Amino acid sequence: MKKVVLVPDSFKGTMSSSTVCEIMEKKIKEHFPQCQVISIPVADGGEGSVDCFLAAVGGEKIEIEVKNPYFEDMKAFYGMIDHGKTAVIEMAACAGLPLVEDRKNPAKTTTYGVGQLILDAARRGVKKIIVGLGGSCTNDGGCGAAAAVGVKFINKNGDEFIPTGGTLQEIDRIDMSGKAEILRNIEIITMCDIDNPMYGPNGAAHVFAPQKGADREMVLHLDRGVKHLSEIIKKDLNKDLAEVPGTGAAGAMGAGMLAFFDSTLQMGIETVLDTVKFDSLIHDADMIFTGEGKIDGQSLRGKVVMGVAKRAYAAKVPVIVIAGGAELDIDEIYNFGVTSVFTINRLPEDFEKSRLKSIENLSFTMDNILRLIKK
Amino acid sequence: MKKVVLVPDSFKGTMSSSTVCEIMEKKIKEHFPQCQVISIPVADGGEGSVDCFLAAVGGEKIEIEVKNPYFEDMKAFYGMIDHGKTAVIEMAACAGLPLVEDRKNPAKTTTYGVGQLILDAARRGVKKIIVGLGGSCTNDGGCGAAAAVGVKFINKNGDEFIPTGGTLQEIDRIDMSGKAEILRNIEIITMCDIDNPMYGPNGAAHVFAPQKGADREMVLHLDRGVKHLSEIIKKDLNKDLAEVPGTGAAGAMGAGMLAFFDSTLQMGIETVLDTVKFDSLIHDADMIFTGEGKIDGQSLRGKVVMGVAKRAYAAKVPVIVIAGGAELDIDEIYNFGVTSVFTINRLPEDFEKSRLKSIENLSFTMDNILRLIKK
Repeated sequence: MKKVVLVPDSFKGTMSSSTVCEIMEKKIKEHFPQCQVISIPVADGGEGSVDCFLAAVGGEKIEIEVKNPYFEDMKAFYGMIDHGKTAVIEMAACAGLPLVEDRKNPAKTTTYGVGQLILDAARRGVKKIIVGLGGSCTNDGGCGAAAAVGVKFINKNGDEFIPTGGTLQEIDRIDMSGKAEILRNIEIITMCDIDNPMYGPNGAAHVFAPQKGADREMVLHLDRGVKHLSEIIKKDLNKDLAEVPGTGAAGAMGAGMLAFFDSTLQMGIETVLDTVKFDSLIHDADMIFTGEGKIDGQSLRGKVVMGVAKRAYAAKVPVIVIAGGAELDIDEIYNFGVTSVFTINRLPEDFEKSRLKSIENLSFTMDNILRLIKK
Repeated sequence: MKKVVLVPDSFKGTMSSSTVCEIMEKKIKEHFPQCQVISIPVADGGEGSVDCFLAAVGGEKIEIEVKNPYFEDMKAFYGMIDHGKTAVIEMAACAGLPLVEDRKNPAKTTTYGVGQLILDAARRGVKKIIVGLGGSCTNDGGCGAAAAVGVKFINKNGDEFIPTGGTLQEIDRIDMSGKAEILRNIEIITMCDIDNPMYGPNGAAHVFAPQKGADREMVLHLDRGVKHLSEIIKKDLNKDLAEVPGTGAAGAMGAGMLAFFDSTLQMGIETVLDTVKFDSLIHDADMIFTGEGKIDGQSLRGKVVMGVAKRAYAAKVPVIVIAGGAELDIDEIYNFGVTSVFTINRLPEDFEKSRLKSIENLSFTMDNILRLIKK
């Protein structure tokens, strides 16, 4: 093999996608010392996504001071790639749950800092901004981020304010006129792998707010707030987002990105593959290795393995999938050009035991696959 | 692939070697319909060994009446292969533990029937007899089998008797003069995969008699009996067998085969590979699949995988090992020409769960290996 592309998802609960890439690359270099190995650790938009992009395509990490979830100053970061033409932001950098571990409260926290990161990137002249959702502590529908770029939220008394999850119902009117001009010609893509609507039983508050610290009463309050926001957006911005899949992501930040930033929502894997110019990367590759924690028929839609397989199929490059586990109902991925699926369970052990051996097990499995390929 | 040879051991506790062969062959035929598949389910000498040989090389099953472990009449069998030139006997057919499940007693049970099977095969004109040890309910040092072919055991009173485990100490003298002449020019090979000595802490009685129903007191009595037998054999037959590895196998039947039948002890896998003429079978094979329940550094010596690998290495045919589990200390098998090792644990589950899925898991693993080979 002369050229191999690695594009694995993380193995949830055991290994980051970067770790998977490292192990795979090490084994390939052992068996094929001359082989060019391109590592693309897949980001899902959550914590670590900026590092994944930087690892995949190179670039610069920009650190700036922004507001944290409680409007306090903090140092956050984003990634600058593609020779300064694209910025990659993960909202978790300044609105992440780990930042408020001891004072979780989705009624009070804000995404304001995310808007500041977006604006900073815009001012540095990027043409495109990728915003990763996930791992947030907020439920403000992206209003904080919008406020940071000049969108005005006005209450019944005519006073401007920055809504948080708990005060969304106080919004009477949204005024987009003050939004930073500089954003007008920048393409903003939001990475979002879930398809929840804004509110209701499958909405942002009901599904995700409990893990952000909301009790039953707060969930209902937050849900009413997001519903109200959707109505104001419809009234003032003429956008009907309530049922759009993904608008409920990250405390309805999905909706906010559509409403206030004219963004599109995109699967993480598609964003990654577009950004790294996957199609041209693989056209002369001998093989692609991908993988994720578990492969099953249910999860194939839109998942990393399927996203990779579809493009590899078009380019006629064989794909090996390595997984922590595989169900039997996965014939679809063979139809889409996956060559083989191998699981890494070297011994018959349950997950509690085997997860501690995931690195050596992945290494063992890669080793033996490569030995077979080399033969 | 045009020709593939399957030569797996059983997966202890889950699948017989025949079952493993069936699953492997089915998958190969799916992916390579034109491929010639030669199945050699490996026998270890224990129960099922005759069927393995018959499956591997074809032949005839001979049923005859012999004595069971309690000197009662029973129908037992052996295999006739190689156009009637070789007989394959498994001692378990008439001295096996399942035959006495409700009355286990290694002090009283006999291998007499095994001698009858040997004699019957001899009378049908075979040139070679393979005797598989394993799965026995006896501890008679093969004296029963010897008596059946005319060897005389005489006590202090000058009376002839047929010793069992409990009466070995009564032997005063062994008289080989009455041994059936017909056995003189027949090669007898004993399959034996363990290396225990006749007696002592690692001997037949201490290690194996408890599972045959012996309590502590009986174990000591049986052990003294085997020690006494070894002394008589040394005195009358001039053979010093006490420490020879394998003589403690199957209630010291290993010793009896050496002493009374001029047999050699041989690893099961070597016997199988010799018998099927493995070296000539594989010389034009594209690939060999072998495997066993668990691969570890400790078990490599003399095990199936290693036996196969050594011969395949000489013939430069790639070997794929499929296992229920693999330890990390198995580099030796790569040095001996094993291409790759794959384990069949499709999901992270402990053995109690995964053993119930072993057929589908082996099938899945074979499928994906073949997909990679086919690519």
